Amino acid sequence: MIRVLISGQPEDWDDFGDLLPAALLDAGIEAEFIQERMPRSPETIDYIVYAPWSDMKDFSPFKGAKAVLNLWAGVENVVTNETLTAPLARMVDPGLTAGMVEWCVAHTLRHHLGIDRDICRRDADWDPCVPLLAHERPLTILGLGVLGRAVGGALSGLGFPVTGWSRSGKDVPGMTCLSGENGLVEALRTAELLILLLPLTPATEELMNSERFALLPKGAILINPGRGPLIDDDALLAALDTGHIAHATLDVFREEPLPSDHPFWAHPGVTVTPHIASATRPETAVGVIVENIRRGEAGEPLLHLVDRRSGY
Amino acid sequence: MIRVLISGQPEDWDDFGDLLPAALLDAGIEAEFIQERMPRSPETIDYIVYAPWSDMKDFSPFKGAKAVLNLWAGVENVVTNETLTAPLARMVDPGLTAGMVEWCVAHTLRHHLGIDRDICRRDADWDPCVPLLAHERPLTILGLGVLGRAVGGALSGLGFPVTGWSRSGKDVPGMTCLSGENGLVEALRTAELLILLLPLTPATEELMNSERFALLPKGAILINPGRGPLIDDDALLAALDTGHIAHATLDVFREEPLPSDHPFWAHPGVTVTPHIASATRPETAVGVIVENIRRGEAGEPLLHLVDRRSGY
Repeated sequence: MIRVLISGQPEDWDDFGDLLPAALLDAGIEAEFIQERMPRSPETIDYIVYAPWSDMKDFSPFKGAKAVLNLWAGVENVVTNETLTAPLARMVDPGLTAGMVEWCVAHTLRHHLGIDRDICRRDADWDPCVPLLAHERPLTILGLGVLGRAVGGALSGLGFPVTGWSRSGKDVPGMTCLSGENGLVEALRTAELLILLLPLTPATEELMNSERFALLPKGAILINPGRGPLIDDDALLAALDTGHIAHATLDVFREEPLPSDHPFWAHPGVTVTPHIASATRPETAVGVIVENIRRGEAGEPLLHLVDRRSGY
Repeated sequence: MIRVLISGQPEDWDDFGDLLPAALLDAGIEAEFIQERMPRSPETIDYIVYAPWSDMKDFSPFKGAKAVLNLWAGVENVVTNETLTAPLARMVDPGLTAGMVEWCVAHTLRHHLGIDRDICRRDADWDPCVPLLAHERPLTILGLGVLGRAVGGALSGLGFPVTGWSRSGKDVPGMTCLSGENGLVEALRTAELLILLLPLTPATEELMNSERFALLPKGAILINPGRGPLIDDDALLAALDTGHIAHATLDVFREEPLPSDHPFWAHPGVTVTPHIASATRPETAVGVIVENIRRGEAGEPLLHLVDRRSGY
């Protein structure tokens, strides 16, 4: 019998609370589930399933924890916690990846075809304007992790010339892969549409500042389903106001929910979506948690371990 | 030296008029191009490149024509012309197919994710609602020609369960293929989103009438980039008014441009796009025309010949 602490707000556990015990039992693992903020005998907790909206700040009482299993892809709010010494695993959820691909392809095609005008129009304005084809619209993805590679694959499958950039060099079939600072300049200069799928680390915070926005072609589109602080908000607003960036579709923000007085809400060049591009889907995420617990109990290496030095 | 009549409005020939002579020359074929409505010696015309907006009604003077090469995928406005005895070829343009795929995937994902609300919203309404994944949204395509198969392949590649229906049975990898009247009933009953890509023939005119709309699941989405008369407009408006159909995105209409007093323009459940889903792209279409002229001159069978009896 293992002990699993599920750390989050009680209302977040409606789905996982039903699915996780059943899935663990199916895997032949008996478990006790604890949802208290600070359980008795914390040193006997074997695994901590960690929701990013958890208010747990001190991991030190959990001296016997074999792993902390994060429920989201991003770990920026836990990776720097010095009280955490157990292995930390990210969520790489097939449902989350599929949802991210769908959201990114939807908004890329929306901007590519200019369909906002069709959607919002109510006057009888018949003005055929044949859109460019995908192969005529080069786009760039910053970040070539599981999500960046999946989104890039779907978009190159639709015909877009895709350039991908990552800190360290990667080689992904079907796209031009660049790395390093010179690679970033080249990746931005050709990006008629730019998708941000980088992890948030000290090295990526405000990566998109006014100098880098200026490298984009005039009229470029920005899509950010990564993390809010990848962007300097004021620099983006300035680039939108001059028209250098034609539109920004943003799913993530420095502060969420996005405060009602933030200028992004009212700006005609910004589309706000409420952090829905990359939702963890309990149906598939549970399988990832169970597999890592099974591995932990069998003494096998865990999947999706975070490198604490690089921050993701 | 062959003689090619290009039949359309003069302003339509800006692109083709430059590209076609050059492409024919590249293929080693010398040609004279004629744009007059009724040229001298019509019996010496070898090929007629036919724009669907041409006002040519009488093909009988062109006794020597080896083929009529249609510039659009649809041939409904020429196929029943009894003065036409030369072989008639449809346009199967890689650019047109790519554009159709992009338009259909864009609007499918737009409805699937419900992004109209995000696009049109200006109040600070942070209301995360995790969308379904593609694999949870069954959709149906009526018509499994070149366009239906290409659109179905792209959508099943994104994870949608795709059912395809055609008059005669077809077998397309990655989708459930149905045919016949019983197959149509089944294809409609499961269609949370329905895409019409049938040719317009006497057998398909008003195929989507009130009885068939009633077969769709409540709240279904209709996307019509095929031909306007595939739909009974009044039946669609009635189904929209009851909410049985949640939204219709229409690119084609009985009368184009769609008259400014047509109720589709003002209906909140309808998105009108101005027949842009399936534009022939001169850059790629020219190659198709040239290849058929080359085949005609070499005595080889023409590509994409229309079966005059079935009407497509």
